[in-house]
Amino acid sequence: MELKEALEQLSLLQKKMYAYNVASSSIYLDAVTVAPSDTAEGRGEALGILAGESHKLFADPAVGELLAFLREHKQELTQLQARQVEELSRSYRQLSVIPQDEYMEYAKLTNEADAVWHKAKETNDFALFCPYLEKMFAFNRKFAGYYDADKAPYDALLSEYERGLSMEYLDRFFGQVREALVPVIHAINEKEQIDDSFLHQHYPIDAQRKFSDYLMEVMGLDRTHCTIGETEHPFTLNFNNKDVRITTHYLEDNVASSMYSVIHEGGHAMYELNIDDDVQYTCLAGGVSMSIHESQSRFYENLIGRSKPFIEAIFPKMQEFFPEQLKNVTAEQFYRAVNKAELSLVRTEADELTYCLHVMIRYEIEKAVIGGKLEVRDIPAEWNRLYKEYLGVDVPDDRRGCLQDSHWSGGLIGYFPSYALGSAYGAQMLRNMEQDVEIWPSVAAGDLSPVTGWLKEKVHRFGGSLTPADVLKNACGEFDPSIYTDYLVKKYSELYQL
Amino acid sequence: MELKEALEQLSLLQKKMYAYNVASSSIYLDAVTVAPSDTAEGRGEALGILAGESHKLFADPAVGELLAFLREHKQELTQLQARQVEELSRSYRQLSVIPQDEYMEYAKLTNEADAVWHKAKETNDFALFCPYLEKMFAFNRKFAGYYDADKAPYDALLSEYERGLSMEYLDRFFGQVREALVPVIHAINEKEQIDDSFLHQHYPIDAQRKFSDYLMEVMGLDRTHCTIGETEHPFTLNFNNKDVRITTHYLEDNVASSMYSVIHEGGHAMYELNIDDDVQYTCLAGGVSMSIHESQSRFYENLIGRSKPFIEAIFPKMQEFFPEQLKNVTAEQFYRAVNKAELSLVRTEADELTYCLHVMIRYEIEKAVIGGKLEVRDIPAEWNRLYKEYLGVDVPDDRRGCLQDSHWSGGLIGYFPSYALGSAYGAQMLRNMEQDVEIWPSVAAGDLSPVTGWLKEKVHRFGGSLTPADVLKNACGEFDPSIYTDYLVKKYSELYQL
Repeated sequence: MELKEALEQLSLLQKKMYAYNVASSSIYLDAVTVAPSDTAEGRGEALGILAGESHKLFADPAVGELLAFLREHKQELTQLQARQVEELSRSYRQLSVIPQDEYMEYAKLTNEADAVWHKAKETNDFALFCPYLEKMFAFNRKFAGYYDADKAPYDALLSEYERGLSMEYLDRFFGQVREALVPVIHAINEKEQIDDSFLHQHYPIDAQRKFSDYLMEVMGLDRTHCTIGETEHPFTLNFNNKDVRITTHYLEDNVASSMYSVIHEGGHAMYELNIDDDVQYTCLAGGVSMSIHESQSRFYENLIGRSKPFIEAIFPKMQEFFPEQLKNVTAEQFYRAVNKAELSLVRTEADELTYCLHVMIRYEIEKAVIGGKLEVRDIPAEWNRLYKEYLGVDVPDDRRGCLQDSHWSGGLIGYFPSYALGSAYGAQMLRNMEQDVEIWPSVAAGDLSPVTGWLKEKVHRFGGSLTPADVLKNACGEFDPSIYTDYLVKKYSELYQL
Repeated sequence: MELKEALEQLSLLQKKMYAYNVASSSIYLDAVTVAPSDTAEGRGEALGILAGESHKLFADPAVGELLAFLREHKQELTQLQARQVEELSRSYRQLSVIPQDEYMEYAKLTNEADAVWHKAKETNDFALFCPYLEKMFAFNRKFAGYYDADKAPYDALLSEYERGLSMEYLDRFFGQVREALVPVIHAINEKEQIDDSFLHQHYPIDAQRKFSDYLMEVMGLDRTHCTIGETEHPFTLNFNNKDVRITTHYLEDNVASSMYSVIHEGGHAMYELNIDDDVQYTCLAGGVSMSIHESQSRFYENLIGRSKPFIEAIFPKMQEFFPEQLKNVTAEQFYRAVNKAELSLVRTEADELTYCLHVMIRYEIEKAVIGGKLEVRDIPAEWNRLYKEYLGVDVPDDRRGCLQDSHWSGGLIGYFPSYALGSAYGAQMLRNMEQDVEIWPSVAAGDLSPVTGWLKEKVHRFGGSLTPADVLKNACGEFDPSIYTDYLVKKYSELYQL
């Protein structure tokens, strides 16, 4: 084989993977937005076959040979080509170890489970979802063995989403976070609580939709390349760096819910839209890892979106969208309300301070189920026990308990810890950003361009052309969770005058 | 090869074709409904590759061998299997003659042309669309030669949509129609025109949306399997018999426009939803031909939707949706207004009587361009000349002229005549239906089930399990265009008291 021909094959292979990804993402997007309710079967048939086709394409031994050939010619490759070969070799090993029939069956299960989860959540019926969740965990445990039979299964899964991540690392990280934050949470429990009742007046959904458009404008999201839709569970979907979709979910009695989901998903979208053209249609397109992605979404959501300068900047405009609801509210009151720390039930609506504990509960449950120490049918009881223990709350029903998140129905087991790591990375990026640029006067003027400029320079533009570790090093230096906990302790000590 | 194995391959092949169809349809649906505006490039990349993959799958010589093997074992096949082999053999011959690179290039062009057509129509800029349309016609002329080098190219294209259809047949059909209808149109021009001004008051789009839901309910469309969306040009998209989508386009100053597009697309959807389960995921799923499909949509739209009993049934409810607009209008006035015959510009809003002339103009232009007698750049002038000649109207701009329809941007050249044939078939079905069942008392009570029941029995349920000719024979007997022209002459003579 000639190198030139091999590189052409490499490029075509990646374009095909891109095309299959666009296909399945489009079908998924349709399913969760506009598809009629009783249509999962036919869609599952199609998704199963497409997954099989794309699996066959990529798991073909010829691909293994192509990648081996290119690894032998590493010194003749450009940096981007070398990174593509590195990433594809990693994925090839992982994907080619899963038998095609299991892969197709899993794709079908994922589609069905999503529809069932929607119904189960709606009707608060864990028993309905339980058999699907059992299969989902069973598949993932089996896949873990395929990925790396030498590792503990949950370590193998964690490493899928964040290479090298382990229970040992996370036990230490979560331990450190718990040690720093739990005393603050306890201290806050003794203080007078912030009044956020005005957030829970009637906020008409049409006005909230217009407010979302405004938030996207403030963030600088280009609407010719990024639209917003509505789904049960907000998410970001990237086709390529010119075509990104975000979704949100509106609650009439909670204006902060969609507001911060728009800013959160907008952060994911900003990352994708800022990735360089030269990695498009390759395996290096898209954000480099889950935790780096979450660092960006939570950066905009919390470090910027819940900062006093940002709220002061947008609050007058917000009063125009909701004149009745906010006429007697000040920006300061709004700032305090959206930063209220409380022992709550729902992760996506949790405050910055307690958020990590929500993630920790999911981490512990996944660890126990994959480790064979907890049966899937016992998840609700264990979930409720842990919420009581860590957050002091009684879970009234599974809808607001273990059925609240879509992740497990989509097969994302081992993903949750990325949220917590991402938050911690973000805090360290902010410290470094503040050392490089004076961002706050601009933010206070409603101009996020210095923020986005720094993130684009240090994180976004690379996509996967650097390794996750290199991106992290580039933006954070040596990772130090205490920067994150210090940031939270300081912010919440001020808010609650501890 | 064993027959059993061959039949398994046959089934898998068709399931794969189904899956690729779901993929490209989902991408298309997204593109025309919610996708951000500047995203055609990345989508085209994906669609081009998927088209290539599906082409490679199907045009593989192994498929030719499989089909040849199965044709040899014809007597051992079930009727459905035999029909699958017959249809696939026909498609295989057609598809396998198109070189893969041309096929992929064409798929990319179709995607790009659709986006450009939208812009061109919006900005009334034919020059923008012209180069794409030139390529589209050039591709189709070339494909025609691949399909059947012995036929005149336009005959080969016509035969793609309606097997055996030819210019000779259509010249005669349109001649017959013109001869019967033009005198009536002229006579109407001498009479006092019907007042339809109340249709053009302000009809708020939100109320129209609710009215669409009501119309779908009256039609008996199951919303758990059929949703409605909004697009520039209304269409029906069928994934399978449990998942069908229709779209419409709302005009604030024309309530009849979306009303009849919903009933029209609802007719297409009804056909798809009523097809038997046993042809799903095979090449026999879906309506059997374009003209039979149009016969169904136009059946509901005109023969039922514009009938006096139907309007009398829904009018009181319609007055509830539009109380201000319709308070001084009677059902009789409404019936007359939506049947007003006029010399108009826009095909989709044309009345039943003049509709065929709109189609005839498109037919003549396609015939001339494919036949090498008209340049694409001269289409606007020729369009305007023919509208003047046949319909006596001056076309004020290309937006309401040759840019009005989406068909050419989607590569549908040779499709238009199906609309006219479908209308004629429908009239003959109605006559036969009336001989079998007393439908009008039910229709007058807002109950379309006897109508749908007859159509399901005679047309819908078969999907492609019968040939188009057999479906036609089943529902119409021997085709006789005079039943259609007689129906129109009678209806319009009464309306205008000729």
